[in-house]
Amino acid sequence: MTTATSRRERLHTVIFQTDTPAGRRFDQTLLVVILLSLLVTIIDSIQSIHRDYATFLAWIEWGFTLVFAVEYLLRLYCSPRPLKYAFSFYGLVDLLAIVPGVLAIYYSDAQYLLIVRIIRMLRIFRVLKLGTYLRQAHYLLAALQGSKQKIIVFLVSVSTLVTVFGTLMYVIEGPQNGFTSIPKGIYWAIVTLTTVGFGDIVPKTPLGQMVSSVVMIIGYSIIAVPTGIFTAELANAMRGEQLKHDCPVCAKKHHEHGAAFCSRCGNALFAKQNDSA
Amino acid sequence: MTTATSRRERLHTVIFQTDTPAGRRFDQTLLVVILLSLLVTIIDSIQSIHRDYATFLAWIEWGFTLVFAVEYLLRLYCSPRPLKYAFSFYGLVDLLAIVPGVLAIYYSDAQYLLIVRIIRMLRIFRVLKLGTYLRQAHYLLAALQGSKQKIIVFLVSVSTLVTVFGTLMYVIEGPQNGFTSIPKGIYWAIVTLTTVGFGDIVPKTPLGQMVSSVVMIIGYSIIAVPTGIFTAELANAMRGEQLKHDCPVCAKKHHEHGAAFCSRCGNALFAKQNDSA
Amino acid sequence: MTTATSRRERLHTVIFQTDTPAGRRFDQTLLVVILLSLLVTIIDSIQSIHRDYATFLAWIEWGFTLVFAVEYLLRLYCSPRPLKYAFSFYGLVDLLAIVPGVLAIYYSDAQYLLIVRIIRMLRIFRVLKLGTYLRQAHYLLAALQGSKQKIIVFLVSVSTLVTVFGTLMYVIEGPQNGFTSIPKGIYWAIVTLTTVGFGDIVPKTPLGQMVSSVVMIIGYSIIAVPTGIFTAELANAMRGEQLKHDCPVCAKKHHEHGAAFCSRCGNALFAKQNDSA
Amino acid sequence: MTTATSRRERLHTVIFQTDTPAGRRFDQTLLVVILLSLLVTIIDSIQSIHRDYATFLAWIEWGFTLVFAVEYLLRLYCSPRPLKYAFSFYGLVDLLAIVPGVLAIYYSDAQYLLIVRIIRMLRIFRVLKLGTYLRQAHYLLAALQGSKQKIIVFLVSVSTLVTVFGTLMYVIEGPQNGFTSIPKGIYWAIVTLTTVGFGDIVPKTPLGQMVSSVVMIIGYSIIAVPTGIFTAELANAMRGEQLKHDCPVCAKKHHEHGAAFCSRCGNALFAKQNDSA
Repeated sequence: MTTATSRRERLHTVIFQTDTPAGRRFDQTLLVVILLSLLVTIIDSIQSIHRDYATFLAWIEWGFTLVFAVEYLLRLYCSPRPLKYAFSFYGLVDLLAIVPGVLAIYYSDAQYLLIVRIIRMLRIFRVLKLGTYLRQAHYLLAALQGSKQKIIVFLVSVSTLVTVFGTLMYVIEGPQNGFTSIPKGIYWAIVTLTTVGFGDIVPKTPLGQMVSSVVMIIGYSIIAVPTGIFTAELANAMRGEQLKHDCPVCAKKHHEHGAAFCSRCGNALFAKQNDSA
Repeated sequence: MTTATSRRERLHTVIFQTDTPAGRRFDQTLLVVILLSLLVTIIDSIQSIHRDYATFLAWIEWGFTLVFAVEYLLRLYCSPRPLKYAFSFYGLVDLLAIVPGVLAIYYSDAQYLLIVRIIRMLRIFRVLKLGTYLRQAHYLLAALQGSKQKIIVFLVSVSTLVTVFGTLMYVIEGPQNGFTSIPKGIYWAIVTLTTVGFGDIVPKTPLGQMVSSVVMIIGYSIIAVPTGIFTAELANAMRGEQLKHDCPVCAKKHHEHGAAFCSRCGNALFAKQNDSA
Repeated sequence: MTTATSRRERLHTVIFQTDTPAGRRFDQTLLVVILLSLLVTIIDSIQSIHRDYATFLAWIEWGFTLVFAVEYLLRLYCSPRPLKYAFSFYGLVDLLAIVPGVLAIYYSDAQYLLIVRIIRMLRIFRVLKLGTYLRQAHYLLAALQGSKQKIIVFLVSVSTLVTVFGTLMYVIEGPQNGFTSIPKGIYWAIVTLTTVGFGDIVPKTPLGQMVSSVVMIIGYSIIAVPTGIFTAELANAMRGEQLKHDCPVCAKKHHEHGAAFCSRCGNALFAKQNDSA
Repeated sequence: MTTATSRRERLHTVIFQTDTPAGRRFDQTLLVVILLSLLVTIIDSIQSIHRDYATFLAWIEWGFTLVFAVEYLLRLYCSPRPLKYAFSFYGLVDLLAIVPGVLAIYYSDAQYLLIVRIIRMLRIFRVLKLGTYLRQAHYLLAALQGSKQKIIVFLVSVSTLVTVFGTLMYVIEGPQNGFTSIPKGIYWAIVTLTTVGFGDIVPKTPLGQMVSSVVMIIGYSIIAVPTGIFTAELANAMRGEQLKHDCPVCAKKHHEHGAAFCSRCGNALFAKQNDSA
């Protein structure tokens, strides 16, 4: 084992893993750097600041781009299979964090590339060890899985409601009251049904206000449906009734995960083959 | 069995049923066509597009009307009882999808007929095989059934609140602050209670703002009521309520979910198989 | 038994009770008349209608006042203890439904008396036989009772939050941005925390917008608290775990309403005194 | 025991404790005084009142400052360890309630010190004996504890969503439509996601309105997540989770809520007393 190889391995542990103190410290530092770079991007978008500190902030952004570039090269260097990393999701995101900074030299209108930078924030999840969190919170996912079909029914119903009411309001109110087209009517229906209520487009005719009232009361009531579905599924998942097997004697449907006997009638849940032999 | 009859039967299977591959493909294609026709109607309502492409879009809409007309005639042709289909709900909806297109030739002001077209979107439910979904989601319906009476009490209370507060605000704020009539006050009360809050009519007097605060806090709090009702009912429906099993000794019919012994006579509800062996 | 007495008794059955067909019909008719009188009051507040039909609507309102007056006198006549009825809640409400109509002759500015009329709408509850509904929905009341203390804690917290944030925003934004006083700031905080968001007063300084964001996220999150409290209590009430008595053997806490033996271990919940004697 | 000492002790009981009638009365009086002083501060911020009654209100505020100062000195006097009280949380809050009033003599611009006064409102919790309430409502805290990790995942997701959508809207809409910077975009995203919807900044381009619709529907749907988490945890805390009882045969510790038999070895968890007799 040469020194170069062992150095690469040690670097790999630090950069890619989070279970050593050095690895944890590296990831935490990286998180801070990413947050700072995001902050600079956000602050740079404020006009009064951009006017006064544009050059200064450009230099800082350049610094961040350099740091991320070095980090990217190190990751390529210490990765056992560099190509696999380069084309993995995180590899591409890491590359995307550098490219806009480089492009900004040639094209000053880098405004639209800012959005690419923000994807880096996904790394927060890696640093926060969301894996551990999600393992703890697998109930959340189980609840979402269990309620998938019910939620599709709900979303289709909402889409239909929104299209129907959007068209209805376009016909009732018309362009002179701000409902200039059916898409605008649908936009208004979504704003109203979700109880956001911007107030940029409002019904002005009495009939339009009556239809709006119906939309609002529907929106206010059906918020109970996703909440109810999700809560009931989550409660179900948390109760941990995972073994679905009818007890042959008392027909109890759900049992503890590792149950061998029914907790209600005490009978064996599964016939023992050896006995019958 | 003549060739014509068997062709009609095969056509019937394709058009009316969804359990053969051909039938599935037909329904999926139809869904896409309906969605496209809806999209054209929606896009045509945008003034800038209507100005430039009115003739082009009119031709496309004509095409869709033709397609739907052919489909309608085919359905009549291959239906075993054409009249029953023609006067069924879906039969009337299918007819309504054609009529406005035909009428639009004579009356250019077909704007108000657009809304009829939208009913076709209900077919989405048929194509999505909502039947299967609803069978899966029969818990949702059971929960709604169980909470029907509680929801009526809730809606009556909301209506009363809205009328009382709408009148109160009309008296307090008066026409000079936008509350031009009691119906307008009721409209405002609905906008506020459902937490939509458009902001087209807002209280301006201190007393009006105090009353508004009460309305808002009531609206914010009572959203818990429908959610609570629905969730509790849904959880109940999903758990399967009570254990229905006659006690072998005292014949008590209903027991707690996890009951092993009868709560009336204390005898075991289920014989333990192992003991008898 | 004279004819007059029996006529009074029959009248009493019709007017005060709802368990005979005639009584039901009387109450349903009364409901329609009250709704119509409310509708007239509401419609009369619309200026364009008031301008054209003021005299006509005044006559109709006079008619309703007359009908209610006759009904009131009949109630007094057939009541076994007229004074007790006259000073009961419904008796006073019935009187209040007549008084404003009479007063309107002398004072044309009866606008502020409209609100008294609306109390009559409470009669809807009597006609709807809410009693029956409420008996069915006693779960709702049990849930509210059980969550009373938790809800007080919640409301005190919300009041504190609203006062603190209202003052904070008054200090930050100041009168030049619409926050003219602390009460106005509190009004704004209620509008924001309840997610109503009228938009009549909005933060304009960056610091104010940051504080607003905190208020909004708090408001969005704590809506879970009353919902959670109410749902959990309702689910509890619906499960009907009403007998709270620790089983002497297995310490099971909640039992069916009429339980004599524990459904988990089958032991008697209460020692039988006779046996020990 | 000298008279002074016993007087101090009696004073201590009255001022610091709430379990004697005198102590209760003292705390209730103090609550009223604090509320009145808050009310004066709030009312004084209304310009029309400040103009006319500034001197009068200043005198009243002076009176309150005096009362609180006397109370503070009494607390110091009767406290067994005055320094410990002086540096405790409540001791500092009590001091802070006096300082701004004193400072207001020298600096008329005491506007920014008003906010310090409001901290006194925390004393409401002490007077309300929140301790008793919280002991009753320990379920609420257990539910919050149990859902801590899930809520962190939720808040991180919301923050990410808000940053991404805020930047996206800044890029799409641009400064000409009110989205003058990314922070403003994030502020808009929070206003929209929480369904507050002030309407001070609204999307004007079709693409912006489409993205807004997505934000609104997300905001409307994910309100189910905190509600579901909290409700399920609260229901869990109120039901008392699992049965903790060692199986007499195999020593399995935790069992289903209603378990009568061990799900691992099938033996009865509780001996039946009647049988042994």
